[in-house]
Order: sequence, then structure tokens, then C-alpha cells
Amino acid sequence: MCQLLGMNCNTPTDIRFSFTGFAQRGGRTDHHADGWGIAFFEGRGARLFIDPGAACDSPVAELIARYPIKSRNVISHIRKATVGAAVLENCHPFVREQWGRYWVFAHNGDLKDYAPRLHGRLCPVGDTDSERAFCWLMQELAKAHAGVPAVDELTRTLAELTPQVARFGTFNFLLSNGQALWAHASTKLCYVERRYPFARAHLADQDLTVDFAQHTTSSDRVAVIATTPLTTDESWTPFAPGELKVFVDGAVADG
Amino acid sequence: MCQLLGMNCNTPTDIRFSFTGFAQRGGRTDHHADGWGIAFFEGRGARLFIDPGAACDSPVAELIARYPIKSRNVISHIRKATVGAAVLENCHPFVREQWGRYWVFAHNGDLKDYAPRLHGRLCPVGDTDSERAFCWLMQELAKAHAGVPAVDELTRTLAELTPQVARFGTFNFLLSNGQALWAHASTKLCYVERRYPFARAHLADQDLTVDFAQHTTSSDRVAVIATTPLTTDESWTPFAPGELKVFVDGAVADG
Repeated sequence: MCQLLGMNCNTPTDIRFSFTGFAQRGGRTDHHADGWGIAFFEGRGARLFIDPGAACDSPVAELIARYPIKSRNVISHIRKATVGAAVLENCHPFVREQWGRYWVFAHNGDLKDYAPRLHGRLCPVGDTDSERAFCWLMQELAKAHAGVPAVDELTRTLAELTPQVARFGTFNFLLSNGQALWAHASTKLCYVERRYPFARAHLADQDLTVDFAQHTTSSDRVAVIATTPLTTDESWTPFAPGELKVFVDGAVADG
Repeated sequence: MCQLLGMNCNTPTDIRFSFTGFAQRGGRTDHHADGWGIAFFEGRGARLFIDPGAACDSPVAELIARYPIKSRNVISHIRKATVGAAVLENCHPFVREQWGRYWVFAHNGDLKDYAPRLHGRLCPVGDTDSERAFCWLMQELAKAHAGVPAVDELTRTLAELTPQVARFGTFNFLLSNGQALWAHASTKLCYVERRYPFARAHLADQDLTVDFAQHTTSSDRVAVIATTPLTTDESWTPFAPGELKVFVDGAVADG
């Protein structure tokens, strides 16, 4: 099983605090050492950093931990290989372009005997069940909509499509097109919303505390989604099994 | 105008020497300071690093210069914006998946009034003429072939397609799918092939010399393609206007 981290904000925000704790799970505080990745949206553009080694030893992860990339939508993943070798093409997140926008996807879980019919518009490059599921979701979204749909339209379509994948196994995923971040839990996912008045938080995976009040303005809103809580002193809300949520501007939009 | 750098090898090779000189042109020895990018194939996977700032000041470029990523196909680009703002989605190289493989493209030049008909399978995310040309090339390749064609087949199709874009302006480009690297010159591109016996080379843009004999085996072959020669003491071959070459295993494959 792997671990997921997502962030959705109303203003470009630096994810270094959360990532610092999360990256420790990639081989240090947990055993997910078969690759990792992180994608940041900046406007319509997206940066993707992936590495087939352990996140806790990666020079690229070390760069991310030092370099303040500010983004409104971030998706990160650390991998414990179950299906597919620990090679670059199997690292999450995966990125595809559709309707002139980049789409970023990461998955935690196993899909058993999952071989959806793919018509060739989008094909997996690696051999993970996760990338197959992503390509299938994007293919079916393209059948349902002629262009980038409104966020709530897209949420409705995803709510129809997701159970068709989830019946093959565990399908915790994060998806973003830079406008919103969709999160689905089969088994394990939780989130926290940070807003004014901001407080201090202490990482669960490293002895590090940050006072968000020093780095924010009163209008900032940030939602962080993770497999398990990243901090010990904030109130994380667990997802119910089968729950799909969409985060827009740092808050749950269909709560 | 921008600058291009490509490398194609028969064994995974570290591009740091060439990149170190090349990155100086991104704001220091030349005025291409509106973004840069580099893509590395590793097997079927690809890593893409892009940054909308100047390469010579970029922490990501500094990471690339320190971290030995070994690859058989690399494409890099530094940008002097002519069409499209200096934002992330306009940074080259661009990446798309087709037929289950990633394709990486970077362009130097301007295409005037270039608005090809795109049928929607691939759409530009940014607003450069370059990304439009890439999407059109991939669309037309998909019409000509049902799956990833053999390298020489693909070269023949590209030789038909390229003049249809080049008539709109300057179309120096590099394209790779990880199996080969295609290079086309309208105006300015040159290459060098390095093979046994390896010699020393001195960078044109920085006072740095490397002795390739210390870093290679006798069977290694490396081709480097660049807008202008990167070294002062090697024999770089200029492309003729309109010439398309394909590099496979570190050497020109079509004479």
C-alpha cells in the first residue's frame, strides 16, 4: 500500500511543512520506499517530480523540502510496490492532457484483475493498475463531456465512474486539473481544513512544529488530504468508505 | 529565439557537463531568461523539469547540475519568450503520451500565423506556436500509424510532415520517444558524435574541461545536438537548412 498527500488552497501555498513529514514515510518512519512523486499546478502549467528511489533519501525530495514552490493544487504519493516494478514509469502521480488542461492522478490501493477496455486515446505507459484506472477515468470523462466541465458536473460524473473501478479493490485516489482537487476513499483517507485563526501544528513523522499564523493572511484557506493524519494536534476528518469529495479554494465544496 | 540541447546515447549517460555550459546561456552568457526545461527518459519513463525563471539562477537547474541523472535520451531548452508569456505552461520541453509512450518535444524559432487544425485528441495547454506544432505533429503521426512505428518509418512520416510546419517560419526542433531522437533544423542546429577513443573537451560558455576517457568505456557512443557548439575543441557538424536527422544509440542513423 502507498500513501497519498494532497493540498488545495485559495492562494498559492508552500507545501514544504506537510511534505517534510510525508517524505519521512518514504523509507524512514514507514516502509514505502519504491518511488515517490509530487505534482504542483502553477496556473495551467504543472510541474511533476518523480523518483523511483526512496523519498527519504532522494536529492529531488530534498530540493522540494528546500525550495518554496507555491501552488493551489498539489498531489504527492509515496509508493510501496505491489503491482509493477520500482521503475520511473510506475511512479505516481501520473499526468495526462485532456481538453487543453493537465490532469494529475495518484492512487493508493490494489485493483485485482483490473483490465478495463481502453480505446486508445489514452494508454498506460507503465504497468500499474493505477495508471490503467486513470486512463479509464479520463477516457470515460471524455465520453461524458465535450470540454472541461464545471467542477460540480465533473464531480457528478466521477461519482458515477468511481464505483465501477472501486469494485475491483481498494481505490483511494487524488485527482486534480488545477481548478479543484477530487479525493475518493475506499478505505483510508482524511483531511484537515486550515483557516483563520491559524494555529500551530506539530508533525506526526518528525519533531517539527510550525505556526501557520506567521505564514498566512486572514483570508487564506488550505485543505490538506492524506492517507493518515500528518499532524498530531489538529482535527483530521476521516473519509467514509466510498466517499468522494471535491476541494475548491481550500475547502470541501460538496460537504 | 531560444536554444536547444539534445543528447542521444547507446548507454545511460550523465548530461551534466553539457548542461552546465548550456544553462549559462539562460541569462548569463546569453539572454534566454524566460524559462527553461529538461526532460530525461529512463526506460519508458520520463522526468521533466521545467521552470519559468532564468536557468542560470534556478534551484532546479542547480539540482540537475549536481545530481547525475543517467539517460539515453535527453532534451533541454532555454527560452527567450517571443510568443506566449513566461509562465510554466509555456516552458519547453512539452510531453504527451501517445500509443503508450511518452513523447518529448522542444522548439526553437517562430511560426507566423500558425493555427493548424487540431481535432481535439491533443490540445495545447499553453499559448505557444511550439506546443501547437507539437500537438499537430503527434496528431498527424497518429493518422499515419496505428501504433508506435519503427524508427525509420517514423522518420519518413516526420520528413513529410515537417515542411508543412516549417513553411510558417523557423522550425528547429528536437523530438524523442525514448527510442530515438529526431532533430530538424530550419536555420541553426549542429551536433557532435563522441566515441572511442574519447578525448578532452572544453566548454564554450564556462571555463570547464572534462576528459571523457575517464568517464566512458570503449563501447560508449554519445551524440550531442545543440543550437550552437557547446565546446570549443570538438568538431561540430552543422545541419543544412531543412535537414531532419534521427539519432539512435549515440549516432546519426540516416547518414
